[in-house]
Amino acid sequence: MNKDINKNNSQIYPDHLVEIVDKKINYYLESYRKSPYILKKAITYSMRNGGKRFRPILCLLTADSLGKDFTEILPTACAIEFIHTYSLIHDDLPSIDNDDYRRGKLTCHKVFGESIAILTGDALFAEAFNIILKYQDCSPEIKLSILREIGEASGASGMVAGQTVDVYYTGKKITEELLQYMHENKTGKLITAAVKCGAILSRAGDEYLKKFILYGNNIGVVFQITDDILDLESSNEIAGKTTGKDILQKKNTFPSIYGISKSKKIASEKIDEAINIIEGMDIKSEWLIKIAKFLLLRKN
Amino acid sequence: MNKDINKNNSQIYPDHLVEIVDKKINYYLESYRKSPYILKKAITYSMRNGGKRFRPILCLLTADSLGKDFTEILPTACAIEFIHTYSLIHDDLPSIDNDDYRRGKLTCHKVFGESIAILTGDALFAEAFNIILKYQDCSPEIKLSILREIGEASGASGMVAGQTVDVYYTGKKITEELLQYMHENKTGKLITAAVKCGAILSRAGDEYLKKFILYGNNIGVVFQITDDILDLESSNEIAGKTTGKDILQKKNTFPSIYGISKSKKIASEKIDEAINIIEGMDIKSEWLIKIAKFLLLRKN
Repeated sequence: MNKDINKNNSQIYPDHLVEIVDKKINYYLESYRKSPYILKKAITYSMRNGGKRFRPILCLLTADSLGKDFTEILPTACAIEFIHTYSLIHDDLPSIDNDDYRRGKLTCHKVFGESIAILTGDALFAEAFNIILKYQDCSPEIKLSILREIGEASGASGMVAGQTVDVYYTGKKITEELLQYMHENKTGKLITAAVKCGAILSRAGDEYLKKFILYGNNIGVVFQITDDILDLESSNEIAGKTTGKDILQKKNTFPSIYGISKSKKIASEKIDEAINIIEGMDIKSEWLIKIAKFLLLRKN
Repeated sequence: MNKDINKNNSQIYPDHLVEIVDKKINYYLESYRKSPYILKKAITYSMRNGGKRFRPILCLLTADSLGKDFTEILPTACAIEFIHTYSLIHDDLPSIDNDDYRRGKLTCHKVFGESIAILTGDALFAEAFNIILKYQDCSPEIKLSILREIGEASGASGMVAGQTVDVYYTGKKITEELLQYMHENKTGKLITAAVKCGAILSRAGDEYLKKFILYGNNIGVVFQITDDILDLESSNEIAGKTTGKDILQKKNTFPSIYGISKSKKIASEKIDEAINIIEGMDIKSEWLIKIAKFLLLRKN
């Protein structure tokens, strides 16, 4: 793998990985040409909205760390990005976070209206499963295992559970335990699923799977902590979305519960833990360590 | 199978089938006790909202027609009801159909608010896949086949496509072809998937599968035509939802394009076609014929 830095994305990803993911996503988008024009347009707009592709790349790098040809697991990696994008579209809706901007562009409902945005999210969620079902080349048993990971990470005991806590307790003070639960579910589980799917598709054994899960859990929570900190410290231009909204909306965040300084300390400790896990494994560890470190430095 | 009529539901279903489906759904609902309380409550409220269970029962009766023990395919049958319920919750939202009542009770967003309703729909969709992945006992290949049917019926070339056309063209006159496309996708494909999944899980051969698909396509469209007619002819009390809204909202429906009389004629012809298909198959045809006939008589 070429080890240059992808400077355009200001991220410590191996060169070309974002392009490879984008190209594959574009390929899938083409298959919606028979869908209603407005739906295809909204799906395409949302999926080409300049995302970091953090989750799919994490999935690919996990496979790469185990010596697997990562191009073979692109369908699963891209499917996870579909789910992530669906969750952003629904989160941004007026009745949820009411966000006008995402990744520096107008949110889906601002461009296409609320009804089409809801349906676009719904479509992306279904299509995530369809992409794996149709395009992921692996044994039926492994495919079912991947689908289980992604289904559980997304559902009533995963992403939606975390988002529900976020919505329901906005404006009400929550405990540290509930904050932890919220972050683990809202953000952590899909990130862990990205790592785990990369490992399962590379036929990692149980012992390594457990370690990858721990790695995923740690960086998953850090991803959300740095998101919360960016909302406080970053400008709209750099973050690509409306910042400073968490305080205005009285959101429960790591900084609101622990303060910025302690939040940064927690994030840093979790990254150390993630790196320790990876360093204790007999794998090509370089990029999984870099991607963990990058989380503490990210600007958007 | 006991052949009494389920009088409580005013439907021509074999006795106890609604109860069997409801009991299984209740069993799945119990598994969300660790989910956030408000989410579990909204999921339970929506899933116990007195639905006809048309799709799951159709799935079970298809299996029964092939001599399969239908209790073995309850997970898939119930999963389809989860998807149907998710679609109703999202359809009822203020920005889509803005419905206050469903099945004679307040809609999910009227009880729990819009944000929780969106998330409840999202959760039900994920849980539909999770139920099949976790509980459906069959070979991995058949399970993947079932998931493909349901994924395709729900996504950007299925239910969401139909709903998008419905939303996007409300207030604009559409062609007969587009009306057909809308109904086939919005309502037809999930109903056909229910039949097809029942047949696949009963290991029907290709020739029979094709016939079941034709049967499903016909009754799927009729289900939507009779829905449109009920909106015009029924009272709120009998239909259990706000009727007469299609005209107010300038919805494109079979009656708005063809008039009531011709719509009824089309429905009747399609039911005849469905019955002919079933009668031409060497199966226990009785209930599949009755359920088709019931569609022309249904009151809600």
